[in-house]
Amino acid sequence: MTQQASLAALHERIAAVNDVLNATSLLTWDSRTMMPAGGAETRGQQIATLTRIARDLLLAPETEKALVEAERAVEGLAADAAERRMVEQTRYAVEHHRRVPASLIQERASLRTVAQAAWIEGRSKSDFSIFAPHLEKTVKLSRSYANCIGWTEHPYDAMVSIYEPGETAASLKALFSELRNGLLPILDAARSQPRPRSDFLFRDYPEEGQRAFGLTLAEKLGYDFKRGRLDTTVHPFEVSFTRNDVRITTRYNRNYLPASMFGTAHEVGHALYEQGVDPAYTRTTLATDLVGLYAVGGTSFGAHESQSRLWENHVVRSLTFWQRHFSDLQRHFPDQLGDVTAEEFYRAVTRVEPGFIRVEADELTYDFHIMLRAEIECALMDGSLPVSDLPEAWNAAIRRDLGLTVPNDAQGVLQDVHWSTGYIGSFPTYTIGNVMGAQVMETLRRQNPSLDPAIEAGNYAALADELRTKIWQHGRRFTREELLVRETGRGLDPAPYLAYLRGKYA
Amino acid sequence: MTQQASLAALHERIAAVNDVLNATSLLTWDSRTMMPAGGAETRGQQIATLTRIARDLLLAPETEKALVEAERAVEGLAADAAERRMVEQTRYAVEHHRRVPASLIQERASLRTVAQAAWIEGRSKSDFSIFAPHLEKTVKLSRSYANCIGWTEHPYDAMVSIYEPGETAASLKALFSELRNGLLPILDAARSQPRPRSDFLFRDYPEEGQRAFGLTLAEKLGYDFKRGRLDTTVHPFEVSFTRNDVRITTRYNRNYLPASMFGTAHEVGHALYEQGVDPAYTRTTLATDLVGLYAVGGTSFGAHESQSRLWENHVVRSLTFWQRHFSDLQRHFPDQLGDVTAEEFYRAVTRVEPGFIRVEADELTYDFHIMLRAEIECALMDGSLPVSDLPEAWNAAIRRDLGLTVPNDAQGVLQDVHWSTGYIGSFPTYTIGNVMGAQVMETLRRQNPSLDPAIEAGNYAALADELRTKIWQHGRRFTREELLVRETGRGLDPAPYLAYLRGKYA
Repeated sequence: MTQQASLAALHERIAAVNDVLNATSLLTWDSRTMMPAGGAETRGQQIATLTRIARDLLLAPETEKALVEAERAVEGLAADAAERRMVEQTRYAVEHHRRVPASLIQERASLRTVAQAAWIEGRSKSDFSIFAPHLEKTVKLSRSYANCIGWTEHPYDAMVSIYEPGETAASLKALFSELRNGLLPILDAARSQPRPRSDFLFRDYPEEGQRAFGLTLAEKLGYDFKRGRLDTTVHPFEVSFTRNDVRITTRYNRNYLPASMFGTAHEVGHALYEQGVDPAYTRTTLATDLVGLYAVGGTSFGAHESQSRLWENHVVRSLTFWQRHFSDLQRHFPDQLGDVTAEEFYRAVTRVEPGFIRVEADELTYDFHIMLRAEIECALMDGSLPVSDLPEAWNAAIRRDLGLTVPNDAQGVLQDVHWSTGYIGSFPTYTIGNVMGAQVMETLRRQNPSLDPAIEAGNYAALADELRTKIWQHGRRFTREELLVRETGRGLDPAPYLAYLRGKYA
Repeated sequence: MTQQASLAALHERIAAVNDVLNATSLLTWDSRTMMPAGGAETRGQQIATLTRIARDLLLAPETEKALVEAERAVEGLAADAAERRMVEQTRYAVEHHRRVPASLIQERASLRTVAQAAWIEGRSKSDFSIFAPHLEKTVKLSRSYANCIGWTEHPYDAMVSIYEPGETAASLKALFSELRNGLLPILDAARSQPRPRSDFLFRDYPEEGQRAFGLTLAEKLGYDFKRGRLDTTVHPFEVSFTRNDVRITTRYNRNYLPASMFGTAHEVGHALYEQGVDPAYTRTTLATDLVGLYAVGGTSFGAHESQSRLWENHVVRSLTFWQRHFSDLQRHFPDQLGDVTAEEFYRAVTRVEPGFIRVEADELTYDFHIMLRAEIECALMDGSLPVSDLPEAWNAAIRRDLGLTVPNDAQGVLQDVHWSTGYIGSFPTYTIGNVMGAQVMETLRRQNPSLDPAIEAGNYAALADELRTKIWQHGRRFTREELLVRETGRGLDPAPYLAYLRGKYA
């Protein structure tokens, strides 16, 4: 049998898994954008069934047979050959799922339903005690989960590896320590500067104009609407159903202009990654997270976030961008922005204002919110922090890092949905994205002297071409760390990120 | 083991099949309403995979085991007990699918892709010869399919039974003969009457006003928007993802007002059926077409069509409806309808005008379009009509029945999408729907003297309550014929339909 033929059976199995997971993603997208309220209950059952089927397909004897055959076929290939990587990643995922009993998956799914309801109630009443017993269970089940998957140094390692393969409690601790030491003086310097005017951001901006500007913004950055669409949701997100259909959402705050435009730029960054994956990887392991059971082309949560933050912050939240495009925005809002200059607008959207809420945080304080959560997750997993002490630990960290006093649990420990969904371990990937984005951008700028002039001239295709070649097209073939070493010559390094923030804010 | 416990395993298996089929329906709905063009290819693969998975789940050894267990458990139950029906229908579907080899399904799916492309090209060039070879293959594969399923008298029987269990080539021939004899004199009488004015239907009706009126119309008829939504598509349709999420679409023709409003009323009729299925049947065999592999609560295509035609024609296309609601419509279009009375509007939307196109046909000529297609399908299946003779046979029938000369294939034999999708056998269900709708309506009116006064007073809930009790709630528990016998005392009978048309048009 030829190598091609030996791999065909496995490809077919994985293509079916990918199809099922894309259907699952559509069930979710629809539930957040289009579904009438009545559909909630049966929709939850449909999503659960399809996720279970994807896992069953992966663990079926036919997959094992095809996998063994494929493993033999790729033996002679280079270590990073695409075909070999597909086979190895499938084996890794199969072994991962084999270690987790169906009963534990069922327990986690059941917990999710009640935990989310309790979190919603707890947050609305600003009372952590309502959510606490469910979080206790979440921690307990997460520990069981980590023990099934296996870990050496710290149970958190097992959870983090699902979202960001290669990272551990120890590696994050080192990263965060360096980051914290670098960030604090920048934050101090920024806070000592006079506050810019920002009154005009809070004027009345009808949704229609925001949407029109957002659409041209997305197009300018290179988002392909023939393979995508932009909808409105409470919480913006990006989701792909293969590279041929990559959708984004945003929200419009009528009295705060930046929310929709930077949100759109952020989701466009995610979408460009997915739209840029090599077409040859469509419906293969290299465009499917077989461990997380999620149809996605980006190689890790952190790598994905690096692209969204790069376009949001390095491109759109820059002085050159607004020097070039502020007049476009003014054309949409002549009354609201008639008395504002491009420079004033840039100062306003980069003002530093420590606050309680992560999703509203500026670039300079955002990582403190993340590091706090990662530390807490780590301590919950190893038992050094009891759930009952969580609000106190949270509030102390906000006081220590940002000098603020948290007024209540709703604006503190209960603000994020993540833990109520049974997930522990994804928060660090936001900061990894910030660090990676800056590191990639710094290297591209250094390697390609014509890049900055192109960006300044409004030619964003130049940057997209670089990123497509170096990151997007590879899909999940290389790990995040491999991508970084290939393109920047070293692993994750916070120095370029700190240098970028210093230059922008200090 | 209790009976409940003996059935639980089967219920769980079927619930998963239902979940998968609902996801398949969402993939389809999305592809027709929301999906960007780029998604077409991979979407097709996703739909194919999920349909295959549904079939695999149904034919899996675990299902057989649960089914045998369940068959034992329901042995003592009444013949029409819901639990017994679930088990029997599941067995029937399992045996049906066992008879069809996967290779034939694959062949039909492959054909569909090329046949649809050829049909689109053929229709745009008005050249039947482009589509003909693919239709030959479709007929050939349909014969193989019929032979797998099995038939006694006519191969068409096997195909029709998929859409309308109980009907055969012979039963349809008898029905159509009676219908044709009844319809011709009514059509003659209608054509001899003076033509009413209808100029105002073709004025400029902006979409916004049409949509606003359509939404209130749907609500008036009892469509529950908390469990539904109305979108815009080229070809209107209704689709359900359990009774909790039943969506409809319509189209807006700016220069022809009736299209959107009667289209909406039609789809609302379908939707009311699905929204009215007993909640206890959700995710069971009684809300799943396990033979057609389609998540639907209505018991047959004909029964479904009976509800859409009943609301469209008996309720909305009636003089009393417009006497009551024409002023609402005028409020949306004061300039366009200022010089029109309710009676004039009613006369215009019930004018009889034989034409070439089925979907544009009036109530009186519609069934001729259907009978023609059913006759052709029948003759194609038994080989008495070669595909090459099809245009001639088509044009002769249109001349015979409607006195019109078909100008070209695009307006003749190539007008419908059905055959290009590989489906033969569904056309008769449209006429069965017309006949059943009138039969049900006649009985309800006779049995419940307060029904017509309620409808005249604009209280459509009275009619909905009757239909919910007698038809909708039963889902797929009873066959179409059983429903008719239970509620009208006899099987399908064209007399009430002919009487209704005579009263309205002759």
